[in-house]
Amino acid sequence: MRGVLHGRRRVAGILHIHWDPSTLRGLRHRPITVPFPSRKPSIILHPPHHVTAPTDIDTLCINTIRTLAIDAVQQADSGHPGAPMGLAPLAYTLFTRHMRHNPGDPEWPDRDRFVLSNGHASMLLYATLHLSGYNLSLDDIKAFRQWGSKTPGHPEHSHTPGVETTTGPLGQGLANAVGMAVAEAHLAATFNRDDHAVVNHHTYFIAGDGCMMEGISHEAASFAGHFRLGKLIGFYDDNNISIDGSTDLTFTDNSKERFAAYGWQVLQVNDGNDLVAIDSAIAEAKADTTRPTLIIVKTHIGFGSPNRQDTAKAHGEPLGEAEVKLTKEAYGWTYPPFTVPPQVAEHWRTQIGARAAAHDEWRKRVIGYTRAYPAEAMEFGRRAQGDLPGGWQSVIPEFTSENGNIASRAASGIVLNAIAAKVPELIGGSADLAGSNLTMLKDSGKFTPDNYAGRNFHFGVREHAMGSMMNGMTLHGGIIPYGGTFLVFADYMRPAIRLAALMKQQVIYVFTHDSIGLGEDGPTHQPVEHLTSLRCIPGLTVIRPADANETAEAWRFAIQHRSGPVALALTRQKLPLIDRTTHAKASGVAKGGYVLTGDEQPDVVFVASGSEVSLALEAHETMKARGMRSAAVSMPCMELFAQQSPEYRASVLPASARKIAIEAAHPMSWYGLVGDTGGVIGITTFGASAPYQRIYEEYGITAKHAVALADSLL
Amino acid sequence: MRGVLHGRRRVAGILHIHWDPSTLRGLRHRPITVPFPSRKPSIILHPPHHVTAPTDIDTLCINTIRTLAIDAVQQADSGHPGAPMGLAPLAYTLFTRHMRHNPGDPEWPDRDRFVLSNGHASMLLYATLHLSGYNLSLDDIKAFRQWGSKTPGHPEHSHTPGVETTTGPLGQGLANAVGMAVAEAHLAATFNRDDHAVVNHHTYFIAGDGCMMEGISHEAASFAGHFRLGKLIGFYDDNNISIDGSTDLTFTDNSKERFAAYGWQVLQVNDGNDLVAIDSAIAEAKADTTRPTLIIVKTHIGFGSPNRQDTAKAHGEPLGEAEVKLTKEAYGWTYPPFTVPPQVAEHWRTQIGARAAAHDEWRKRVIGYTRAYPAEAMEFGRRAQGDLPGGWQSVIPEFTSENGNIASRAASGIVLNAIAAKVPELIGGSADLAGSNLTMLKDSGKFTPDNYAGRNFHFGVREHAMGSMMNGMTLHGGIIPYGGTFLVFADYMRPAIRLAALMKQQVIYVFTHDSIGLGEDGPTHQPVEHLTSLRCIPGLTVIRPADANETAEAWRFAIQHRSGPVALALTRQKLPLIDRTTHAKASGVAKGGYVLTGDEQPDVVFVASGSEVSLALEAHETMKARGMRSAAVSMPCMELFAQQSPEYRASVLPASARKIAIEAAHPMSWYGLVGDTGGVIGITTFGASAPYQRIYEEYGITAKHAVALADSLL
Repeated sequence: MRGVLHGRRRVAGILHIHWDPSTLRGLRHRPITVPFPSRKPSIILHPPHHVTAPTDIDTLCINTIRTLAIDAVQQADSGHPGAPMGLAPLAYTLFTRHMRHNPGDPEWPDRDRFVLSNGHASMLLYATLHLSGYNLSLDDIKAFRQWGSKTPGHPEHSHTPGVETTTGPLGQGLANAVGMAVAEAHLAATFNRDDHAVVNHHTYFIAGDGCMMEGISHEAASFAGHFRLGKLIGFYDDNNISIDGSTDLTFTDNSKERFAAYGWQVLQVNDGNDLVAIDSAIAEAKADTTRPTLIIVKTHIGFGSPNRQDTAKAHGEPLGEAEVKLTKEAYGWTYPPFTVPPQVAEHWRTQIGARAAAHDEWRKRVIGYTRAYPAEAMEFGRRAQGDLPGGWQSVIPEFTSENGNIASRAASGIVLNAIAAKVPELIGGSADLAGSNLTMLKDSGKFTPDNYAGRNFHFGVREHAMGSMMNGMTLHGGIIPYGGTFLVFADYMRPAIRLAALMKQQVIYVFTHDSIGLGEDGPTHQPVEHLTSLRCIPGLTVIRPADANETAEAWRFAIQHRSGPVALALTRQKLPLIDRTTHAKASGVAKGGYVLTGDEQPDVVFVASGSEVSLALEAHETMKARGMRSAAVSMPCMELFAQQSPEYRASVLPASARKIAIEAAHPMSWYGLVGDTGGVIGITTFGASAPYQRIYEEYGITAKHAVALADSLL
Repeated sequence: MRGVLHGRRRVAGILHIHWDPSTLRGLRHRPITVPFPSRKPSIILHPPHHVTAPTDIDTLCINTIRTLAIDAVQQADSGHPGAPMGLAPLAYTLFTRHMRHNPGDPEWPDRDRFVLSNGHASMLLYATLHLSGYNLSLDDIKAFRQWGSKTPGHPEHSHTPGVETTTGPLGQGLANAVGMAVAEAHLAATFNRDDHAVVNHHTYFIAGDGCMMEGISHEAASFAGHFRLGKLIGFYDDNNISIDGSTDLTFTDNSKERFAAYGWQVLQVNDGNDLVAIDSAIAEAKADTTRPTLIIVKTHIGFGSPNRQDTAKAHGEPLGEAEVKLTKEAYGWTYPPFTVPPQVAEHWRTQIGARAAAHDEWRKRVIGYTRAYPAEAMEFGRRAQGDLPGGWQSVIPEFTSENGNIASRAASGIVLNAIAAKVPELIGGSADLAGSNLTMLKDSGKFTPDNYAGRNFHFGVREHAMGSMMNGMTLHGGIIPYGGTFLVFADYMRPAIRLAALMKQQVIYVFTHDSIGLGEDGPTHQPVEHLTSLRCIPGLTVIRPADANETAEAWRFAIQHRSGPVALALTRQKLPLIDRTTHAKASGVAKGGYVLTGDEQPDVVFVASGSEVSLALEAHETMKARGMRSAAVSMPCMELFAQQSPEYRASVLPASARKIAIEAAHPMSWYGLVGDTGGVIGITTFGASAPYQRIYEEYGITAKHAVALADSLL
């Protein structure tokens, strides 16, 4: 979300207006109390929509989308032509008649969002973006699915202008869209004033049969229905075909009744080529602002292909030269491959120009808002820019012995609340474990259908949607989302974590109950493999703090780290506070691993993370008392440690020392650090149900065991 | 599923009859063609059920469940009392009036299955099992949540008699139950004859609000509805409370309409204490055999607790001494803690004895079946015992140069079909990627609502439910399930994979498209971290074969391995066939890793898995041509390799050699194998969309790169 109003320039024939926070400069920043407006959208500023009858040029525009998709897939000899062929009329109608967007400024904060949840239909999006005037050329389309192109097999956010999120893994886009609608509702409730709406846009998505079958569609749709996200409008591409064949093979839900049961308005378009019906349905969807709308659109996969239409063969493979020919004949299409007829380009430009005018209206509104509410405008500008508020770090608490021994989840709750008081974009909650994850923000209200300004989210027992909605919230901009659950249930949301990492999005996971240390709940709730399985996700930063002060540093990093997700692994059980007057400062967390105390040339180094750091310290003290040269290292974050210089790393884990790692988890991620001469005290089986002290003892996760291992290695 | 009919003995006062396949000995084994009976259940043998009015003894029995739960949680100072208190009348009614079970033989193949999907209510199950006469004593209950007890925090299969599956992670039990109902339907259709029903039982589950919120409930319920699993009966514990508070905070689905939209019969019990209503609803559910039934039961969490009932406080913590006292007063309960009044024990014994009589009926039916259909009975006995058919390994194909270069997914399809022809219990399918995973069994029919004998499953785009249903299918017994999807989507089913490993259940995952080698679909579809993240799950065996013959050996292991899940990682792209006349035999797969070719005392060893083995061979040949002492090792399975003797492992990866690992995946799992002096050619970022050869080149996953690394290390 970058916005600058630094003048006008023409891109692809479209007036291009940026919003510039410099207009706000010189306005005194003063804290304000934001009233909680009612959930009714304050102002609908765009004029009423008139449904128009289709014309020949409409058909030509639609067939341009279709043939671009057909040609690109054919040339790449790989891809999915069928869905774009069926959905072209919908995409055309939506992009040219309804969406408020400005292809010249794909980052305009108040643009409508569009998400293609059935990401394999990527050519639908690429063709539509190209025709709309986004910075995506015909040459880019010709390079579909080739190395380095802007048109990868599935749409990738930050790779292609106008692609709002990375999709492909089914159902994710639908839940991302719910998250975007949440962000819009929250920012609108926070910033809009009765006479000024600076946030007022819709979120659209298209979902296929696969998205509707995935469990995440249930979680996200149930959430959207409960919270009455009235500016969320989805299309279900109801084409009765999935990769294996007819959906009748396995999927006969009554989706209309299903979504009605979630509290959605459900509309039906019986012919996906009926532009008037599509147009009217969208208008009707917009008119009901009290609940989300699903428009079920009956389409024909591979529309127009004489031998492939309505078959699974149209789904995921090129039509083949012969069928391409027959299909183009059926369209009456006489142009060479990759042609955009001039009248199509012209028509599209005119249509989009009219839509982009909304950007100009919005700019005027922001100017009015800035005059009337300078402080709010300043704050809105800051959040739109993605800057953190000045001085936010000053509130991070330092824990002393007066705080006593507290669990890192408890420290996390304290730190989170301190930071959240200064960082209003920090919003989030828990998947029905708020009291365990300690994720509740005091005095910040609940996000409810009647109070979208509330910052505390009850995500429900919906880990997967929580993860994916957080992706949508951060992608929307203006928000730093966090979400809590038990570490073991990171598994439920893993596809969403992966996508946050792939998209380099700031999402913070508060994973508590991070080992056998949770005790009685037993092996179903005790993570063993989870730290390793998260550490190997490229771009995810996993931090497992050793005490309250490391927890504070972990949160500091998580807020500062704007280019990727961070997972915090926190204990249920209490942890001793490390005495920082005699041991190194917790600021060492920023380096991933650091020496807490010990000999400068140790023969043995005990290295641990989280709750096991106290065992490393205990083992070190035992060795020291025996006159050995020993050291204790805290390693809260392997990813950050790997980024340090070789010299620094060698100073923490010297080549000459025996390295003993201690972590109540699978040892796999430690082998590279301890090397051939070291060892790991870890767990390679599942846990057990009992008071945690007993489990630690039975599993040998003890200082005594670490000392014995050191003895055997030295 | 073990069953032996070796006489009678009395356990807990109940007649105990085993079914003994020795009665079948001497019958000639002959192959038979099993006709596909219609999907209507052949015979309902149990007498019509009469709903009976409640009595005082009923109340006393119900309050015994409640007080046992209260006392156990109080004594453990940990656990969930509220749900057992609300659900006690339902459990009592179900176990004493409906379920066909024999506590003396919890392994009776034709018993009704009961699954507690809201596993945190474990004390409901433990109390009910104890009162029913299962081998679970009052002392076991007193040891609730303690080290080594039979009563862990959440129910664990194979740990406690009568616990059909391990639950706790929400939604899993519901999907397990669907899998059990699938198994019942399939075995009934396969073995029953018009006049003899040897498989004819119900599957019951209880699910809580959390289960209903989880996405997996959508996938599994949609599947069950489509396939009209008429002998599946679920109860929704509709108590309006989850951990964070009222479900009104976030969950207001109309669950009745939602399940109706899936094709379920939905019944409502408005008072969870109304035994007549519960009784009638179950009878009505049984009467409709054409679709699954959900019975929505309005209950009160913490029923009877004056200050906790209907609050989240009743959910996950002990009531506390004072409230325990008040609650028992409200029940009119005057006994000391952990008391089963004698009249309760007596009443329960009588009730269960009547239910267990069904076991005797079944025994007679099996005798009749054995006389009429000796071959089928022999086969049924074999599958009930869990024995593999004689000679099944003889059909495993050996691939030669005549087969040409084929992808390991293609080899897998060939091997799977060969084995399946001999192993009829091998049934499965794909999550809508049958044509890509090559999981279809030829000439074996499709599992459809009209043909439950079919062996090919269209699981739909429901990876999570597929995984969890497979757990249910294997737990039921008589079946070896397999399921396919792309390796990257293992993430969608990870909670189910973990539970298969925890329960040591035989489930086979066919994960194809196992690296950047899938090419154009791009980073959303290209696994990077997945091999490491699966290898660190305790008890899961991950095999990534290098060519067609290793794929055959991988399947051999997967079928033989009866005590845990196996994940096969298979390529989309073609692989060269390793010449076994000049290289070691593929039987080395059984040892996890083996030397393909090379010097006996190598200075450098190139070790790889799957598609990268050909690169290891190429690098080795390059070094050899340069006169270096080199070797090439195939490492299809790290878990099996770790189980070999230190001597064997050192013979494959000698301490004196530089070890270079090559795998188009995250390197983390290799560090322990290559050691301090070795190196890994791997991937620590996400993939890219392009033809795969280009990606391999750009990412440096090449023999040239491996040789360069070797040069730099030597």
